[in-house]
Amino acid sequence: MPEAVILAPQWIAPVAPDPRVLTGHAVLVEDGRIAELAPFDGLRERHPDVPLTLLPGQLLVPGFVNLHTHAAMSLLRGVADDLPLHDWLRKRIWPLEGKLVSRAFVRDGALLAAHEMLMGGTTCFNDMYFFPEEAVAAARQLGMRSMQGIIVIEFPSAYASDAGDYLRKGLELRDRHRDDPMVGFCLAPHAPYTVSDETLKRVAVLARELGLPIHTHVHETAAEIEESQSRHGKRPLQRLDALGLLGPELIAVHAVHLDDNDLRLLATAGASVAHCPHSNLKLASGIAPVARMIESGIRVGIGTDGSASNNRLDLLQEARTAALLAKGSSGQADAWPAARVLRALTLDAAAALGLDDRIGSIEAGKRADLVAVDLSAPELSPVFDPVSQLVYAAGREHVQHVWIDGRHVVRKRQLTDDVASEAVSELVGRTALWHNRTGEILSG
Amino acid sequence: MPEAVILAPQWIAPVAPDPRVLTGHAVLVEDGRIAELAPFDGLRERHPDVPLTLLPGQLLVPGFVNLHTHAAMSLLRGVADDLPLHDWLRKRIWPLEGKLVSRAFVRDGALLAAHEMLMGGTTCFNDMYFFPEEAVAAARQLGMRSMQGIIVIEFPSAYASDAGDYLRKGLELRDRHRDDPMVGFCLAPHAPYTVSDETLKRVAVLARELGLPIHTHVHETAAEIEESQSRHGKRPLQRLDALGLLGPELIAVHAVHLDDNDLRLLATAGASVAHCPHSNLKLASGIAPVARMIESGIRVGIGTDGSASNNRLDLLQEARTAALLAKGSSGQADAWPAARVLRALTLDAAAALGLDDRIGSIEAGKRADLVAVDLSAPELSPVFDPVSQLVYAAGREHVQHVWIDGRHVVRKRQLTDDVASEAVSELVGRTALWHNRTGEILSG
Repeated sequence: MPEAVILAPQWIAPVAPDPRVLTGHAVLVEDGRIAELAPFDGLRERHPDVPLTLLPGQLLVPGFVNLHTHAAMSLLRGVADDLPLHDWLRKRIWPLEGKLVSRAFVRDGALLAAHEMLMGGTTCFNDMYFFPEEAVAAARQLGMRSMQGIIVIEFPSAYASDAGDYLRKGLELRDRHRDDPMVGFCLAPHAPYTVSDETLKRVAVLARELGLPIHTHVHETAAEIEESQSRHGKRPLQRLDALGLLGPELIAVHAVHLDDNDLRLLATAGASVAHCPHSNLKLASGIAPVARMIESGIRVGIGTDGSASNNRLDLLQEARTAALLAKGSSGQADAWPAARVLRALTLDAAAALGLDDRIGSIEAGKRADLVAVDLSAPELSPVFDPVSQLVYAAGREHVQHVWIDGRHVVRKRQLTDDVASEAVSELVGRTALWHNRTGEILSG
Repeated sequence: MPEAVILAPQWIAPVAPDPRVLTGHAVLVEDGRIAELAPFDGLRERHPDVPLTLLPGQLLVPGFVNLHTHAAMSLLRGVADDLPLHDWLRKRIWPLEGKLVSRAFVRDGALLAAHEMLMGGTTCFNDMYFFPEEAVAAARQLGMRSMQGIIVIEFPSAYASDAGDYLRKGLELRDRHRDDPMVGFCLAPHAPYTVSDETLKRVAVLARELGLPIHTHVHETAAEIEESQSRHGKRPLQRLDALGLLGPELIAVHAVHLDDNDLRLLATAGASVAHCPHSNLKLASGIAPVARMIESGIRVGIGTDGSASNNRLDLLQEARTAALLAKGSSGQADAWPAARVLRALTLDAAAALGLDDRIGSIEAGKRADLVAVDLSAPELSPVFDPVSQLVYAAGREHVQHVWIDGRHVVRKRQLTDDVASEAVSELVGRTALWHNRTGEILSG
C-alpha cells in the first residue's frame, strides 16, 4: 500500500465545513489521514511524485456511519417476517437467540453483516450485541471502524449472567482495546423495559466517569410507553432523565413515539436520535417524526437496525427511505433535503458517537474514511446534483471504492484483501449450516 | 435463439394458481410461451433433447409489471428535488417540458428508462407521455412488453393541439399496432383537474366501445380534492363516477387521499389502484392507505411513476417500500405480507391492464415473461423464505436473467442484443447533451 495517494474524482461532497459539492478538486491521503483537499492542479504540482487515482464519473463522500445495528443478527435475516414487534421478539427472536447465540454465531454473523455494510459504503458501525469481541474481530478482518456496545440487560445469556457481569465483560474488552484507534465503545443498556433503575444509574455514572456515549433503544413502540407509565409512572425518556441518562452522550435509538415534552427533553439535553425507518415500518412500530426532531434541533443519524427486522444492511437505501418518509409524513416536500441527509449519514452520526473530530467529513486532518460512488451508469443519468443523485437515485450497487483509515479496502466492488475475501466466501457455506440449525429449532 | 429451453432454478414462485414456492421444479419454455411447469425429473425425461439452463441459487418469478410510469421523464431525473408537487409541476416540470419535449427527447428518455426498468426485472410497463410511438420503439428495441397511454390533456404541446388531436393521434397509433402482441393501449386522460367533463365523457365511451383500460392520476393530493369540490361540487372520484369512468377498467394512479366513500366507490366498481409510494413520499403528497384498500378488496398494483419524482425506476425497491409502508402506516406488521406484494408486482398489475390471461404468473399457456434473481450472494444469506428474501432483502442488483415472450433479453446482468446494448451506451452521451440543454433553460 502506498503511503500517499491523490484521489481525483469528478465530484467531492466534503459535507463540512461547506456542504457544497466541489469539482476540479482532489484529496491527498497520507498516513491514513486526509492531508489536503484542494484544487487538483495546485495539489498535483505540489505533490508530483504521489500516485494518482483518477475517478471519472464518481462522487467522493465521507464513509457512511451506521448509527445502530446488531451485526450478528444477519444470521436471522428473514426468520420472522410479517410479524408485529411483540411476537417477533418474544415468540421468535428471543427463543431462537436463547438456543443459538454463542461466540461462533456472533463471529459468523458479524462478519456476514460487516461485509454487507462495507460493500455498500458503510465504513463505521455502532453495534449492540452479545460477545462484542467477535464483532471487533469481524470489523478488524475487513479493515472497518466500529463502535461496540457494552451491552447490559437484566436477563442471563450465553454471554453473561447478570447486569454486573455484562458490564464487567464489556469494560474488560474496552480495556484490552484502549490503544486500538479502529474501535470505540458505548454503554449499551438494551432498553428501559429490560434494564432496572439501579443498573441504569450505574450506566449514567460510568458514562460520565469514562466519557462514553450511551446507546439504547427507546420509545420504539406505543406499548413500551404505556407499560412504563403504568409501572414507573413516567414515560421512558422521563425515567431516563430522572436516572441521569439524558445528556449529549445519549443515542436514543428509534424514538418513534415522541410528544412535545419528549422532543423538548431530547433537544435540551443535546441528545442524538438513531433513526431506523425500515425497521420501524417493518415491525409496524410507526414513523418517527424526523421533520419535527430536526426543527427542534435534535441531531439525527441513521441506522439499519439488525437484519432480522430490516432485512438489508444498506445505509444508502435506509437514507433514501428516511429522506422520503420525512417529506411524506410531514407534508413538507422540502423537509430533510439531500445534502442534510448526507450529513446525517456521515458527520451527524459521527458526532453522536463522539467521533466527529476524526471522521464524518472530508477535511484536512481527519482520518481518510472515504467512499467513491459511480454516477456514470445509465440509470443515474443525467446528473443535475450529485448529492441529490446519491440520495434519491443511487444504490449500494454503485459504490465502487472504499477507503478506511487510508486503506483501500474495496476496489471496483471487490475486497482488496485476499484473506478477508476468502473468509467471506467460506462464510456463505457456514451460513447454510446456521440456517439448518435454526430450521431444526423452529420445527422442533 | 433455441425454440425451446428448460429453466431449472433452485426455487420457483409461480404466484398463481398456488402462491407457494416450488423446489425441484422446472419450466419448459417453447415458442415464447410457458409450455410446462412440472417436477424437474419428469420434465427432463419427457424432453431429453431440449437445452437445459440450470439456475442454482436463483429464484424464478414472473416478470414485474410497472403499473405507472412516464418513461421519457428519465431525462429530468433529479431536476427538481426537494420541492412540493405544486411548485415541482408548475415551476419546474411543465415549463421545462414546454421547451424540451420533442420526438427526439421522448426517444432518448424512453430508451434510458426502459433499460433501467429491464435491468431491474421489469418486463412490462404502463406508460403515459407525449409521442407514445417513441416509447413503443424503445420497448421494442429492448424486447420489452408495454402498455401505452393514449394521452389526453386540455392544453397543447409539441405532440398535439387539443383533446381531440391527442385522442386522434393515440387511436391512430393503436390502429397501427393492432397486430403487435408486445404493445397494448390504455386511454390516459392525464388527471381530472387537467381534463374537461366533455373529454372525460368521450374517454368513457371509447373505453367501453374499444375495451380499453383507463389510466389516470387521481386523488394524488389533498389540494386536488379541495379544488374539485369547489369547482365541480364533487370529489374527483365522484366526478369520474358521474361521468361514467368508474369501472373495472379504471386504473386510479396514486389514490393517496381516500375517504370511506372513495374506498367504497373503487371497490364496488372493481377498479384498480396504481400505488406509487416513493413519488407520493417525495412530493409530500402523503401515504396511500394500502392496508385499507386491500381490506376493501381493491386490486393494488405498484408503479414507479416517472424519474422526475422518484428518481429510480426500480420496481423491486418500490415494492419493498410499499410493503414496509403498508405495515408502518397501518400499525399492522402482518399487513401486505411478501407473497401478496409479489402478486401485486406481477399478476395483480397484469390484471389491472387486462393482461392476466397472458402474463403475471408462471402457468402453462402464459407468455414466458420471467425473471431469475440470484439469492446466493452473502448479503442475501441465509434464505428462510425466498419470496420474503426477494421483497425485503434483495435489490435490482440481484436480477441475473430476464426473458420476455420467451426471449432471453438479459443474461448475467448484460443485454443479450448487441445492437440494443450499443444504443444504450451511446445514450449516456446523448443524455449529457439533454442535461446541458436543460441547464441552459433553467439558467435563463
